[in-house]
Amino acid sequence: MGRLVMKFGGTSVADIARIRNVARHVEREVKAGHEVAVVVSAMAGTTDRLVGWTREAASLHDSREYDVVVASGEQVTAGLAAIVLQEMGIPARSWLGWQVPIETDSMHGAARIMGIDPKGIIERFAQGQVAVVAGFQGISRDGRVTTLGRGGSDTSAVALAAALNARCDIYTDVDGVYTTDPRIVAKARKIARISYEEMLEMASLGAKVLQTRSVELAMVHRVPLQVRSSFEVPDGPNQNTVDGSGPGTIVCDEEDIVEQQVVTGIAYSKDEGKVTVVRVPDRPGISASLFGPLAETGISVDMIVQNVSADGHTDITFTVPQKDLDRALKVIGDHKNQIGYDSLKAARDVAKVSVIGVGMRSHAGVAADMFKALAEKSINIQAITTSEIKISVLIDAAYTELAVRTLHTTYNLDGH
Amino acid sequence: MGRLVMKFGGTSVADIARIRNVARHVEREVKAGHEVAVVVSAMAGTTDRLVGWTREAASLHDSREYDVVVASGEQVTAGLAAIVLQEMGIPARSWLGWQVPIETDSMHGAARIMGIDPKGIIERFAQGQVAVVAGFQGISRDGRVTTLGRGGSDTSAVALAAALNARCDIYTDVDGVYTTDPRIVAKARKIARISYEEMLEMASLGAKVLQTRSVELAMVHRVPLQVRSSFEVPDGPNQNTVDGSGPGTIVCDEEDIVEQQVVTGIAYSKDEGKVTVVRVPDRPGISASLFGPLAETGISVDMIVQNVSADGHTDITFTVPQKDLDRALKVIGDHKNQIGYDSLKAARDVAKVSVIGVGMRSHAGVAADMFKALAEKSINIQAITTSEIKISVLIDAAYTELAVRTLHTTYNLDGH
Repeated sequence: MGRLVMKFGGTSVADIARIRNVARHVEREVKAGHEVAVVVSAMAGTTDRLVGWTREAASLHDSREYDVVVASGEQVTAGLAAIVLQEMGIPARSWLGWQVPIETDSMHGAARIMGIDPKGIIERFAQGQVAVVAGFQGISRDGRVTTLGRGGSDTSAVALAAALNARCDIYTDVDGVYTTDPRIVAKARKIARISYEEMLEMASLGAKVLQTRSVELAMVHRVPLQVRSSFEVPDGPNQNTVDGSGPGTIVCDEEDIVEQQVVTGIAYSKDEGKVTVVRVPDRPGISASLFGPLAETGISVDMIVQNVSADGHTDITFTVPQKDLDRALKVIGDHKNQIGYDSLKAARDVAKVSVIGVGMRSHAGVAADMFKALAEKSINIQAITTSEIKISVLIDAAYTELAVRTLHTTYNLDGH
Repeated sequence: MGRLVMKFGGTSVADIARIRNVARHVEREVKAGHEVAVVVSAMAGTTDRLVGWTREAASLHDSREYDVVVASGEQVTAGLAAIVLQEMGIPARSWLGWQVPIETDSMHGAARIMGIDPKGIIERFAQGQVAVVAGFQGISRDGRVTTLGRGGSDTSAVALAAALNARCDIYTDVDGVYTTDPRIVAKARKIARISYEEMLEMASLGAKVLQTRSVELAMVHRVPLQVRSSFEVPDGPNQNTVDGSGPGTIVCDEEDIVEQQVVTGIAYSKDEGKVTVVRVPDRPGISASLFGPLAETGISVDMIVQNVSADGHTDITFTVPQKDLDRALKVIGDHKNQIGYDSLKAARDVAKVSVIGVGMRSHAGVAADMFKALAEKSINIQAITTSEIKISVLIDAAYTELAVRTLHTTYNLDGH
């Protein structure tokens, strides 16, 4: 049956009863003949408590010491999960980041995995032992504890799966990836299979099922991923059927998806801030003088629209993450003389709605369908960006839900 | 000024405010020119919570995994204390057991320190950095996390002081070692200086200020110890004067104590169980047949009294730790035929009261004074044991406080 990495998040290990449920999932896979490595997060609430203490200790704290404090959370879960597995008669031991070792760079608090030596774990596999690996943590070259940043346990799991040449199942509190947010579209359907590229767009657009970095890593190393619920009955069916009636969503190569839709999902983000720079002189180099300083400050600009020029001047509109909006306005204000604009306008009541699908590479008319459907609902489009597999529009935030529901129907994604 | 190890227990680091207070103590010593290693326990309550989880996970758990879970408590405090010290402008870094490394045997849950390599810490001392060492934990030869058992942070501190050739200050929630328990004798005095041997007797008889193992270790390696309060004002006086007006109690070589008392302290223990074996045949080998099986079961017998023989039979009375009383009765019951006694009697309402002092080696009459003082209060002595520096008597538990107060006065220990 081969090797399997199973990753469980904080809500799935929130107390001993839930860790027992996790152990039953593991038991099922062990009985099916898998060699299993389990990657665990900290118990829900633990990381927040630990982070709170580091903040109380000092507002600006040494990120090396922050990592020592925060990494303790996954350590506790790893030990407890090993105990529970043993209690069920399944040989198991815990592995901390430094024990595997999971080597990272020294960017404490947001470290990147440089390499994993799976030798020790593979030796124990041969003895029939389950490896319980503390997620989110590693060891730097100078022997300090590092953490991968929030949500880093997904990344730990995928990187470990790559090193072990294993499949990776991500257990979470939802049962898969949906065509869109089920909280706003009742007819949203669970997606049976989605390509890495699509998942990456979904994740970066706010579908919080998987961390963007873990999807990137899975794509690069071609690690087969499955997203499924840790709250399902542990002895239910174990693999998705093509129609999605199985337990989760499989994230895989485009070629492994037989029935490819044109559009796979609709994503949205209300985390957008809009800036309009009014009456900029329309001359060469003006974009550089505007966007250069923003880039230097580390603010990433997303959508950009430039009006048709009139009397040698133009308006430029762009979006930034909402948390960076005030900083962006300050940077542009500081460069008013170099840029030479009249005034600045800012808005937070905007949202980005995106349709995503690898099928649009070979299908014309996807964008036209989108614009038509939104126009029929009188939703005004303020900006557009496109990639090979995604079309995003900026709209008034009040219309977000209407737009998502409309597009969900337009591209035949409604279930039931 | 040399090197100093400062150890702080769980109540001294119970929250960030208290860790700040710890940091002020450290600051004082750093400013005085010391190279400082701080050994910290888990925040009060943390270890109990972690232990509770391991018990909930399985009643019989793998002690290797127990250690992984429980060691996380000291890890958190070490990181937080390093952050707080840095915030105060004092260079500091945390050291986990495996980072120092503190090498132990593989007796998980009760490991013994085999060696400490202080090279890394000494290198950082040279750079002016304080070492914050997670107490209570180490690493076994096969790279697993170990813990030293409850109270093991004292042992960590003394072992580290031995490796660093440093003095060791144990900060706790009392301000020193007292001539007896101040809760029952209002006139108890803080002892300015006490010898290792006396401290060992005090500790093993229930004075909970220091762990027995840490005192043994200090004695073997001649580590100068000081017990003092972490709640005192951090910028108060820093060393004891001979009359005890300083901050704590110094535990040292007998030769370093100028004004030696005959009796240094009175200890008591209510944790005693008494067994009387009635009408044992008085023949050679009877003690072996009685105490052999107890020793094999790991029950340590303390005081033993054998009555004068009459008609070829005798009664034998002995004490065991109260927690072992039922087990002791069962073991002896199981060997009734071999021993050949009539009946067994057991009592829990007994207490052991001890007078301790290296001075009694050269002073006759200490025991006689003790027996006379107790007789004057009509306190009946049920058993006696003596060592070179200690006389212990077993009495009815109801008289414990009266006996301790009486002896405290008899040996001129009353203060004020």
